[in-house]
Amino acid sequence: MDLKRSPLALPFPQMPEIAGVTLRVAKARYKDWDRCDLTFVELAQGTAVAGVFTQSACASSEVEIGREQVQSGHARALIVNAGNSNAFTGYRGREAVEQIMEQVSQHIGCKPSEVFVSSTGVIGVPLPKDKAREGVKSALNAEPCNWEAAAQTICTTDTFAKGAKASAMVGGTKVHLAGIIKGSGMIAPDMATMLGYVFTDANVEPVFLQELLSAANTDSFSCITVDGDTSTSDTVLVFATGKAEHETITGWDSPGADAFAAALNDICRQLAHLVIRDGEGASKFITIRVSGAASDVSARRIGLSVANSPLVKTAIAGEDANWGRVVMAVGKAGEPADRDKLSIGFGGIWAARDGLPVEDYDEAPVAEHLKGQEIDIAIDLGIGDGRASVWTCDLTHGYISINADYRS
Amino acid sequence: MDLKRSPLALPFPQMPEIAGVTLRVAKARYKDWDRCDLTFVELAQGTAVAGVFTQSACASSEVEIGREQVQSGHARALIVNAGNSNAFTGYRGREAVEQIMEQVSQHIGCKPSEVFVSSTGVIGVPLPKDKAREGVKSALNAEPCNWEAAAQTICTTDTFAKGAKASAMVGGTKVHLAGIIKGSGMIAPDMATMLGYVFTDANVEPVFLQELLSAANTDSFSCITVDGDTSTSDTVLVFATGKAEHETITGWDSPGADAFAAALNDICRQLAHLVIRDGEGASKFITIRVSGAASDVSARRIGLSVANSPLVKTAIAGEDANWGRVVMAVGKAGEPADRDKLSIGFGGIWAARDGLPVEDYDEAPVAEHLKGQEIDIAIDLGIGDGRASVWTCDLTHGYISINADYRS
Repeated sequence: MDLKRSPLALPFPQMPEIAGVTLRVAKARYKDWDRCDLTFVELAQGTAVAGVFTQSACASSEVEIGREQVQSGHARALIVNAGNSNAFTGYRGREAVEQIMEQVSQHIGCKPSEVFVSSTGVIGVPLPKDKAREGVKSALNAEPCNWEAAAQTICTTDTFAKGAKASAMVGGTKVHLAGIIKGSGMIAPDMATMLGYVFTDANVEPVFLQELLSAANTDSFSCITVDGDTSTSDTVLVFATGKAEHETITGWDSPGADAFAAALNDICRQLAHLVIRDGEGASKFITIRVSGAASDVSARRIGLSVANSPLVKTAIAGEDANWGRVVMAVGKAGEPADRDKLSIGFGGIWAARDGLPVEDYDEAPVAEHLKGQEIDIAIDLGIGDGRASVWTCDLTHGYISINADYRS
Repeated sequence: MDLKRSPLALPFPQMPEIAGVTLRVAKARYKDWDRCDLTFVELAQGTAVAGVFTQSACASSEVEIGREQVQSGHARALIVNAGNSNAFTGYRGREAVEQIMEQVSQHIGCKPSEVFVSSTGVIGVPLPKDKAREGVKSALNAEPCNWEAAAQTICTTDTFAKGAKASAMVGGTKVHLAGIIKGSGMIAPDMATMLGYVFTDANVEPVFLQELLSAANTDSFSCITVDGDTSTSDTVLVFATGKAEHETITGWDSPGADAFAAALNDICRQLAHLVIRDGEGASKFITIRVSGAASDVSARRIGLSVANSPLVKTAIAGEDANWGRVVMAVGKAGEPADRDKLSIGFGGIWAARDGLPVEDYDEAPVAEHLKGQEIDIAIDLGIGDGRASVWTCDLTHGYISINADYRS
């Protein structure tokens, strides 16, 4: 199925080089296609790594192994396979991952546990070991490539390559962050998978890097949803090569820790937004701002309940300021709410306040706002200080076409 | 918007008369239409009542009041308004409900608290008191009507009238149950609401009736989902007039308690299935049978995770035996699962067993099964004895058309 470039796509940015990071791509031909589908990222000695992974109880071998690997905090290489998620493939899937770890570690002279592997694509087909072996061999010997080529290579049915950058001043030294991500595309019977990678030349102690990534994840990747369906392979990894010349960031007291954390938050949020911009069938980018909730966690859950509501998402697709559906989605979230204190607005205009429709509510500017591509929904619970922002896209015929009209 | 009769619709059944129940309908004209939209059910003195209501934190006044009313266990009348849900309307909405309770109670000579009121339709518009007063007045004086007329009158955008019946032998006496239900229809900005009512001539003590209804609800209404969006007004009430000549059923030791409980379970399940058969845009009726889970509750949660997955629902719409998406939905349920013990089948044929695709899996009979209207998905967790059945419909372009293409 040929997918049109998303109307919400952004051009690929000018990306910085990250000292200690070398990108290469190759053709493993995991599917019947003639495109690069295997990415190899070589990382300098001393690179710190942190990761967050899907909560799925049916996670892939790659995720299981990755969860163990990040404990050590060190990485020398990343391999990403596109076209086969290797999920639900039992011991045969695991063997394929271990083969790749072994092959790469021998080439660059590191421990197999320092080689991270991700796979994305069809479920239930063991990653073919022979194709993987040949693909990895080609990649190990390929010429270095740029960020866009790598971002393109990790895609499956994404409609555009996704990259983002950020920078921070750490103790007088400028450090750079570059990130690539894939997600939201789908060819039945494939499964949408989000894989995101951030690379930086900053020098960060691994345990603190994990703390920063977990915090950034809470406000970025954990706040986006296309359809509420959690993949078996979702993975975000951050690699810090330590090539920038500044004192190691070991905790919040280190010079530049705040600046680096802010830059990491920034790039994670950019990458998360890019996934929504490539949401299946998306025609609107929706921001849901929740305030006045019992807690930040409660605010996020309420935001996600609204963001995952098919009735809210179809209303936005229909450019309909249907705040009744937002009330419904707040009500079903299972979080503290008081109907008579609840306020709901679109594009900065309240449609309902304190549990009642606004008397002199002027729908014209709201209707105008809903015609745009960037939709803002505000929800104030009026019962506390908890707040969160959540991002999603609308639910359109495009989603059905991508996921139902195509036969495996 | 004119909605076509669901392809999964069933003809309205031949219904029994229930002694002590008199049905009447009238035109309150809550919307700009010329149809009956107000239902009045008069119940004999001594009628026991039990109810289950939406868990929504933004429930309507009708639901709030109803929750209090069922505590007393006695009912003399039911009023159902169609076209306006009266939800999110604050004190003005509450006043309208109280006015109806007062008006009906004066007419039949009972306490206002014995008059139950439900409303379904647009959110955020207070139920107009003048229309309600005139509508109730007409209904109080109307000629009695049959079940189909009442079932039609409680509908909003349902595409067919829904009724079901059951019977049981209680201590040598045959008792009858008749039920009507509405749900799944939608006109933006209206909200799908499920309202269900069961009437029986059985003589059941109210506290025990509530226990039986709660149990029946767990395996019926709590096991269906069209889109995972919980209404602000969902209500199921059961009224037992006690006109049948048998000893009062006061607990499990009473003669016929088991038979009556089975009949109540039966009619609740029938009614629940009818809602799915009128699911927005539905073209397939899907049964998800979960076994081998850690507990029955866990099995139901896993079943609902699958039933609410847009990716699973679109796969079924596309007649695609995409068991990878089922794996994904099991994995994201947040319930105990062991990927390597998981089995998934369609139409009685296992596609994956014990965490691996079935080697000699023959897709032809599965493909044939998926072309039908009644789809069976089996999930065995292989870790315990918990089991549950959950029912849903597929997700089609029809759902998007109903909910997005129409502007309020």
